[in-house]
Amino acid sequence: MRMVDIIAKKRDGKELSSEEISFFVKGYTDGTIPDYQASALAMAIFFQDMTDQERADLTLAMANSGDTIDLSAIDGIKVDKHSTGGVGDTTTLVLAPLVAALDVPVAKMSGRGLGHTGGTVDKLEAVKGFHVEISKDEFIELVNRHKVAVIGQSGNLTPADKKLYALRDVTGTVNSIPLIASSIMSKKIAAGADAIVLDVKTGAGAFMKTPEDSEKLAKAMVRIGNNVGRQTMAVISDMSQPLGLAIGNALEVKEAIDTLRGEGPEDLNELVLTLGSQMVVLAKKASTLDEAREKLIEVMKNGKALEKFKEFLENQGGDSSIVDQPEKLPQAPYQIEVPAKESGVVAEIVADEIGVAAMILGAGRATKEDDIDLSVGIMLNKKVGDRVEKGESLVTLHANREDVANVIEKIYDNIRIADHADAPTLIHTVITE
Amino acid sequence: MRMVDIIAKKRDGKELSSEEISFFVKGYTDGTIPDYQASALAMAIFFQDMTDQERADLTLAMANSGDTIDLSAIDGIKVDKHSTGGVGDTTTLVLAPLVAALDVPVAKMSGRGLGHTGGTVDKLEAVKGFHVEISKDEFIELVNRHKVAVIGQSGNLTPADKKLYALRDVTGTVNSIPLIASSIMSKKIAAGADAIVLDVKTGAGAFMKTPEDSEKLAKAMVRIGNNVGRQTMAVISDMSQPLGLAIGNALEVKEAIDTLRGEGPEDLNELVLTLGSQMVVLAKKASTLDEAREKLIEVMKNGKALEKFKEFLENQGGDSSIVDQPEKLPQAPYQIEVPAKESGVVAEIVADEIGVAAMILGAGRATKEDDIDLSVGIMLNKKVGDRVEKGESLVTLHANREDVANVIEKIYDNIRIADHADAPTLIHTVITE
Repeated sequence: MRMVDIIAKKRDGKELSSEEISFFVKGYTDGTIPDYQASALAMAIFFQDMTDQERADLTLAMANSGDTIDLSAIDGIKVDKHSTGGVGDTTTLVLAPLVAALDVPVAKMSGRGLGHTGGTVDKLEAVKGFHVEISKDEFIELVNRHKVAVIGQSGNLTPADKKLYALRDVTGTVNSIPLIASSIMSKKIAAGADAIVLDVKTGAGAFMKTPEDSEKLAKAMVRIGNNVGRQTMAVISDMSQPLGLAIGNALEVKEAIDTLRGEGPEDLNELVLTLGSQMVVLAKKASTLDEAREKLIEVMKNGKALEKFKEFLENQGGDSSIVDQPEKLPQAPYQIEVPAKESGVVAEIVADEIGVAAMILGAGRATKEDDIDLSVGIMLNKKVGDRVEKGESLVTLHANREDVANVIEKIYDNIRIADHADAPTLIHTVITE
Repeated sequence: MRMVDIIAKKRDGKELSSEEISFFVKGYTDGTIPDYQASALAMAIFFQDMTDQERADLTLAMANSGDTIDLSAIDGIKVDKHSTGGVGDTTTLVLAPLVAALDVPVAKMSGRGLGHTGGTVDKLEAVKGFHVEISKDEFIELVNRHKVAVIGQSGNLTPADKKLYALRDVTGTVNSIPLIASSIMSKKIAAGADAIVLDVKTGAGAFMKTPEDSEKLAKAMVRIGNNVGRQTMAVISDMSQPLGLAIGNALEVKEAIDTLRGEGPEDLNELVLTLGSQMVVLAKKASTLDEAREKLIEVMKNGKALEKFKEFLENQGGDSSIVDQPEKLPQAPYQIEVPAKESGVVAEIVADEIGVAAMILGAGRATKEDDIDLSVGIMLNKKVGDRVEKGESLVTLHANREDVANVIEKIYDNIRIADHADAPTLIHTVITE
């Protein structure tokens, strides 16, 4: 088998066999197939697409290119949730303890993130003492006993995907549905879940800017998951404006606590209930989505969700007193209001640009080496569709310095006030096949 | 300027600017742009094509990526002839002295070849003493005085093309009209000719297998040439069967001598007159193609063409007595006839496979390191459309060993005898714009 023939076959629109895809993934991982052949293949895939079989084969080959996590020692159906990423996305922090409170096992592998705010691990580290450096055995033991644990990402998970992703980034081949879908799904499958709930974001703050593109990606991922034997479904949710009100690590932990108490922002609350219901049903802890939703609301109201969060934090060394005393979370020294320059209705809060503003404050990383300030970030005081009077605060900046003129300018540039505006649709579609 | 943006722009079907193309070619030549970005761009070009302007820009950028030859010290209009390559293609050996006999300056830079037989330099080296290691000054002096000289290829001609061609070869991006056309034309332009006559082959033994594809390539090259200010035209000629009768280095020199005397095989003679007429008109040594053809036939008949060939050989150290005593050329020890197994009409002589048979005998190189045996090769005794009786010789193998069973088998596999067959059309089209 020669890589040049595989490239030419795909270039000519023919279907690659499982053996050919496996030959490519193995050879690319071990370095016998050079970058210049992989990038040519990626570009050919960009133009010629891949069939369902090819996508499933590529996903499995990448999932098996390095370590895979065996969760079979954990009782019950392990459901993983994955978000394609956005701004102020606090859902994981809420969902993990929330569904665990209904005995859905949550065995989460999570990493630090590049982007507007940190990854889930960074956010959790806003809680003093919390750590994810636990052994595999301890991880499995914790999930079996307490239904929820988070472990740091294994060093050698899907090396083929890591290498290919880095290459795609510099060769104009990022934007290919089969490559994006197999990249995401390979990681989920290597991480060992039995079932997968995907939160596919759409809008300015998302990778996919239109509902149509998001739906294409969602369908591709759901089909891959189901084709490789993992029950998978996707929710397409709005990311035209940031989700919830908090953008920043400690701020989002605080928001997660409010939401677990049933007092979260309306959109975050609704998304959490939508995704959570799907997880509960997939884990067979409820037979209908309505039943699942009722149960979730119940554990929010009766405090069990919050109790589970405390338990989770304590299990991994975290100071759970922050749940009742959130002021113990890292606090930024400066709180700066950004007042509206005119009266009207908030018509647009450009999610990705507001995310960049939070990153400038220090909430996120532009490069792997950057340090994160867990205390800083942005609290939205208005969301799209809200009435605002001139001089009323649009957002509160939580800053570690007094001079944030550049951030304020960015806020004004990216919050538009008009005469009329409706809140955007939060849940666009639910895709199950 | 970032290479990844250039790739994405082409991927999305937009036209690259001269600056962008030049940025790519310079960066790729000096190594600051890596192979994996170049291969992704090549694949994007495969799918999105290039505009006339882009093709001209790419050609010029590659032509200027290394040494360029300045022929301005040579009087008259320097016309170069280029063949896209085939089997038994003796045209250059004939054309160079033939048009020089009409005072058309032929300043030829030529290399050794990979393939069925050697390159023009290899063929000429079948003449004892002949060498192409002459200085640039000597080269120009010879052309000015004698109208014809051949110099070995400069080491650093179109390095960008060399690098890109090698990369395309292993990344499934060879078969792209804009990339093939700019590759060929960049070399011709760097080699300094004022006008260019292209012999674009079509059929089994050619790179382009159909007249349609050959015409596309021919048009692309002619347009590039004219767009960068070099008058260019192309003849599309048959390469379904080998051209002429000889395939092999010394055998082709002998065939060239016959042809210069006006006694060459019909197809070779016709092609030489067609291409030669174009060269003579481009060099303004005749005002019409008919007039040029008459003049060419005249110098064949009156011996001036053959005299010019002798002069040319002598000027570069060659033993010109081989012209009158061709038996002085290297002779293979074994001449083996391959008799027809049945009577009928020759319906097919698969050019490329017969070429491979010649290479197996030792006439060509599979890799750069291979040695060539200048004496060996194949003489066709029949061509397509010829009547043959059972037992009559189809070809004569000139071999340096007795056991050539594998070659004979290949001959039988690739010469088909049928009830009826016509000779193929030799000249398909002449393209001038």
